[in-house]
Amino acid sequence: MSSTRITNFMENAKKFKKWPKKDKQPKVKKLKINLFGYHAVEAAWINPKRIIKTLYVTEKSAENFQSFIEKHASLGLKRPAPTIVSRRELDKTLGQDTVHQNIAINAEELPERNAMDLIISEKKNERSTFVILDQVTDPHNVGAIIRSAAAFGLAGMVLQNRFAPDISGVLAKVACGAVEHLPVATEVNLSRAIETFKEHGYRCVALDERGEETIAQAVKDSKKTVLVMGAEGPGLRPSVRDACSQIARLEMHGALPSINVSNAAAISFYAATST
Amino acid sequence: MSSTRITNFMENAKKFKKWPKKDKQPKVKKLKINLFGYHAVEAAWINPKRIIKTLYVTEKSAENFQSFIEKHASLGLKRPAPTIVSRRELDKTLGQDTVHQNIAINAEELPERNAMDLIISEKKNERSTFVILDQVTDPHNVGAIIRSAAAFGLAGMVLQNRFAPDISGVLAKVACGAVEHLPVATEVNLSRAIETFKEHGYRCVALDERGEETIAQAVKDSKKTVLVMGAEGPGLRPSVRDACSQIARLEMHGALPSINVSNAAAISFYAATST
Repeated sequence: MSSTRITNFMENAKKFKKWPKKDKQPKVKKLKINLFGYHAVEAAWINPKRIIKTLYVTEKSAENFQSFIEKHASLGLKRPAPTIVSRRELDKTLGQDTVHQNIAINAEELPERNAMDLIISEKKNERSTFVILDQVTDPHNVGAIIRSAAAFGLAGMVLQNRFAPDISGVLAKVACGAVEHLPVATEVNLSRAIETFKEHGYRCVALDERGEETIAQAVKDSKKTVLVMGAEGPGLRPSVRDACSQIARLEMHGALPSINVSNAAAISFYAATST
Repeated sequence: MSSTRITNFMENAKKFKKWPKKDKQPKVKKLKINLFGYHAVEAAWINPKRIIKTLYVTEKSAENFQSFIEKHASLGLKRPAPTIVSRRELDKTLGQDTVHQNIAINAEELPERNAMDLIISEKKNERSTFVILDQVTDPHNVGAIIRSAAAFGLAGMVLQNRFAPDISGVLAKVACGAVEHLPVATEVNLSRAIETFKEHGYRCVALDERGEETIAQAVKDSKKTVLVMGAEGPGLRPSVRDACSQIARLEMHGALPSINVSNAAAISFYAATST
């Protein structure tokens, strides 16, 4: 890190010598960006529900992206022409440490949804699994959980709206395009949302280390399932846990029986969808 | 972030005014540190196999750690007295963005091991599961996998020695103390290590999306198991995959059937230990 900073400093210093007047320095403007990185941008680009206002690419990256753009344009996809920017503009907008892969977009947010929208969307499916996250707010964790949920074919996610992270930026990057596939709803009151799921025939399983059943037992033969998970450390709030139909634990036999919340989520998605 | 930097700058600016001469500025020295963060330090502190040379704490953090130190000293644990440092010294050593929680140590590395050491250590146990990582090098991923492996009671991990990340620093922080519990061995040639495991009665299961069996089928009724996993993207090298007894896939039915390697590892540990 510090060596990069020194290098940048030296580069800037050299350039400075060449500029005769201060007002001739090239200005690096900040861009409006909410999605970046190859997987996130590609998935958004081909998502018909996503309105894209601007695509920012460096000259080099535009070449790499060209055939992808042309392929989808020939299939009738209407998208704006790329805007060429410098790497420095992307770095300045997103921060030096952000891995943006020289590609970013400014897109409109996906339509807002609530728990009832998710339930209705799954009415015709015989099997559906949802996940509710209570107070899991770290964008890396939520991004990884969205990715796993999409991988295991979950039908959607519900977050508490006051604490939900933005479904964009680093979260969307970590999710590797899965934010375009997994419907994410927000609700003011998660206990109420759980009641709504139960009224519509869903088995709501709270993940909690004090559960008497294992996750495999709790989801056995369930066709309509909601997995309810809390943050590492505090876990589920009691009101949310008590609203669930049953409480299940992840069985761990090791010396330190505690894992990261995104790993716990991945295991419970696997368990719930392989029953 | 930028507001923190501005605040630091203001603090420094204020102090600067008070210093009459430049040579009276307090120098911030770099420390020698290889483990930091509460969980990582606490686990190392009570690990009898870990030789600790220095404990660095801020004054405030020393107060919080006091009862923990005293409790283990009263049980006969011999450890050096804490060295009080400033937050700035820790920041300077570890970088501004590192979450060190005002506690760090300089410790000797744990003893080196190879695959045969691991096999011997498990000779008396009826059931043992190991994991081999091929070209998984990101310290966040390896740290999270070590944590999950310890949580599910795995007996150890094998890494290829040329590409293995240091089992310290951010990796140990992410592992939350699990590096003190899970034996990690290194080998020059992973295919040879797999042969050694097989010669000693282990079923070596390669995780690969082209596997004909599911992971659950592949580990069924196995008492001595080695799970062999490659990096996201490239996957296992063919020579490593071909050395295994069988190839298994993680079943995913979603739109984007791809998950992060630490999530895939967590699921396979769960599958292998709940059989």
